[in-house]
Amino acid sequence: MSTVISELPDAAALCGHVTAVLEGFLAHKETVGAKLRMPAEVTECLRDLAVGGKRLRPLLCVTGWQAAGGRGTPEAVVRVAASLEMFHTFCLIHDDVMDGSASRRGAPTVHRRLARHHGQDRGTFAAERVGASCAILIGDLALAWSGELLHAAGLTPARLDAVLPLVDDMRSEVMYGQYLDVTAAGRPSTDVDQALRIARYKTAKYTVEHPLHIGAAVAGATPAVREALSAYALPVGEAFQLRDDLLGVFGTPEVTGKPALDDLREGKHTVLAALALQRADREQRRTLHSLLGSPALDAEGAAHLRVILTATGARGEVEDMIQTRRAQALRVLDTAPFPPAATVSLRQLADSALVRAS
Amino acid sequence: MSTVISELPDAAALCGHVTAVLEGFLAHKETVGAKLRMPAEVTECLRDLAVGGKRLRPLLCVTGWQAAGGRGTPEAVVRVAASLEMFHTFCLIHDDVMDGSASRRGAPTVHRRLARHHGQDRGTFAAERVGASCAILIGDLALAWSGELLHAAGLTPARLDAVLPLVDDMRSEVMYGQYLDVTAAGRPSTDVDQALRIARYKTAKYTVEHPLHIGAAVAGATPAVREALSAYALPVGEAFQLRDDLLGVFGTPEVTGKPALDDLREGKHTVLAALALQRADREQRRTLHSLLGSPALDAEGAAHLRVILTATGARGEVEDMIQTRRAQALRVLDTAPFPPAATVSLRQLADSALVRAS
Repeated sequence: MSTVISELPDAAALCGHVTAVLEGFLAHKETVGAKLRMPAEVTECLRDLAVGGKRLRPLLCVTGWQAAGGRGTPEAVVRVAASLEMFHTFCLIHDDVMDGSASRRGAPTVHRRLARHHGQDRGTFAAERVGASCAILIGDLALAWSGELLHAAGLTPARLDAVLPLVDDMRSEVMYGQYLDVTAAGRPSTDVDQALRIARYKTAKYTVEHPLHIGAAVAGATPAVREALSAYALPVGEAFQLRDDLLGVFGTPEVTGKPALDDLREGKHTVLAALALQRADREQRRTLHSLLGSPALDAEGAAHLRVILTATGARGEVEDMIQTRRAQALRVLDTAPFPPAATVSLRQLADSALVRAS
Repeated sequence: MSTVISELPDAAALCGHVTAVLEGFLAHKETVGAKLRMPAEVTECLRDLAVGGKRLRPLLCVTGWQAAGGRGTPEAVVRVAASLEMFHTFCLIHDDVMDGSASRRGAPTVHRRLARHHGQDRGTFAAERVGASCAILIGDLALAWSGELLHAAGLTPARLDAVLPLVDDMRSEVMYGQYLDVTAAGRPSTDVDQALRIARYKTAKYTVEHPLHIGAAVAGATPAVREALSAYALPVGEAFQLRDDLLGVFGTPEVTGKPALDDLREGKHTVLAALALQRADREQRRTLHSLLGSPALDAEGAAHLRVILTATGARGEVEDMIQTRRAQALRVLDTAPFPPAATVSLRQLADSALVRAS
């Protein structure tokens, strides 16, 4: 989804600035850590992950700043944006531990990499445990360091005071979303509301609304700007998650970069699955219950599931829901009190929910 | 070690205030969470853990405040102290996941409790995974919420500005200490410096120096006060860890509340073990290497290890190191620029390193 935003005139420059801030910060941490004999693998893992990001949240943070009337991209805004990227790195590392994922962005996940590194003279079980422990700790450091980047961003006390509660809410809410996701996975259900709630907290609020609000707060946003940003962000964010759910099942792994069976094998509680269960006949329901979340799911079983997800009309309804949400977000932009440049960026982002392939 | 400090006149009252702040905060989180359909288990787990704490770090935080000339215990200081307790709750939950511990303070650990709760219709492996995932997330929430408690403590911007970098350092350093501990465990070595480094970061700085400094910063401590606090805190904190290491091996489980074999079975890299390996003869060294960190260690093997740890003189030398550090800390108090009440508390704390049994 960042491909569209990253076509904006100053997006490439912003990504470069965010990368420079993160690299400078991690280089400093590496120097400090070396004095305590901390192995360089900690900062190396974070650098490898943080450098590979698409910078969606930093871009939205700067767009929020512009939407609230901020001009240019001052150093403090870039640093706040970089702190969001560090927070996201924390999310990725812990999510991968929880999901037991083997790879991320084409490379081994942090826990796998460190299980190999520290496991050479340990048994498999001990190696996996030390790898998971290191990944939990590196994630904890990334969470703590996202705070440190924010505290040292150079905001005035009044601005920091406005931003801290928003960042606190963002942290809690994405963790809530992940908690609901983790506890619901592997238990197929017809509860569409719960699936939408997970999408709202894990994606709509975390990925879209909070970065926009945080950037806007740095510019001293008015209540009208904040409200318009939320009215735009929530439908767009939900549309993104719905698109993700479809891509996770029907996408081309070479394009999406994620294995085609993972979501089905995990039995993720998505709107797509909930709708299919609602609309399934007895035979289809039995198949959905037996295959969704089955660790033994193979390509044939996945193909069978795809047929049911389409035949029940669930796939089509999710496409409709994406359309509806995109239209809703675009209507908000028609009357939102944003400067034109911000509106253009936000319009492109909403469009990309409809067309993206990865 | 808190038994001594908790005999101070206002310690019981302070513990009560900290508990009230934590309970109020968690009750609010529970109300907010219920609206998002978050299960109450999240706040219940945190409440059960946070209420059972000895409040050592909050007590030291208030002692630091007094050492720097603060009078009474204003609400803001109590809230900062409560945020340290919430941070410690995070540490306990993640440490227990990393160590795979079954119990904490006589009750099942968070990951065990939630594996049971969410695992009823899942297989053992899936139940353990969901339990660990929930515990990682509840720990993440406790870390985020320790920040929230601090941000909303009611500090002036100048005081918050002084406290935030100290809290940031505390977070990084205890995570560093834990990282060194986790990667060194199960690999017995003669490296006493590394064992002391782990003790310094995991205990001396985290448990003693940082809480004192943070409390002192709220009172606007002078550099002389800060230096004296560090000069006192580091030897006392190391002595505590050395005492812990001895209790972990030679203590009475009924008194220490922790199984007598855990430290030996984990193969924790302690000063005690490093000294024993340095001084062991060939036969003893072979036994140490084969039994320290062996998951199969039984009571007989542990008894054998205790004989070697004593016979090599390692146990005696660790006792001497505790004495030396206590004396060093007491000398600092003779000339430290603290008000008498703070000096009395700190003297009692140093004494307790020598005598405590749990």
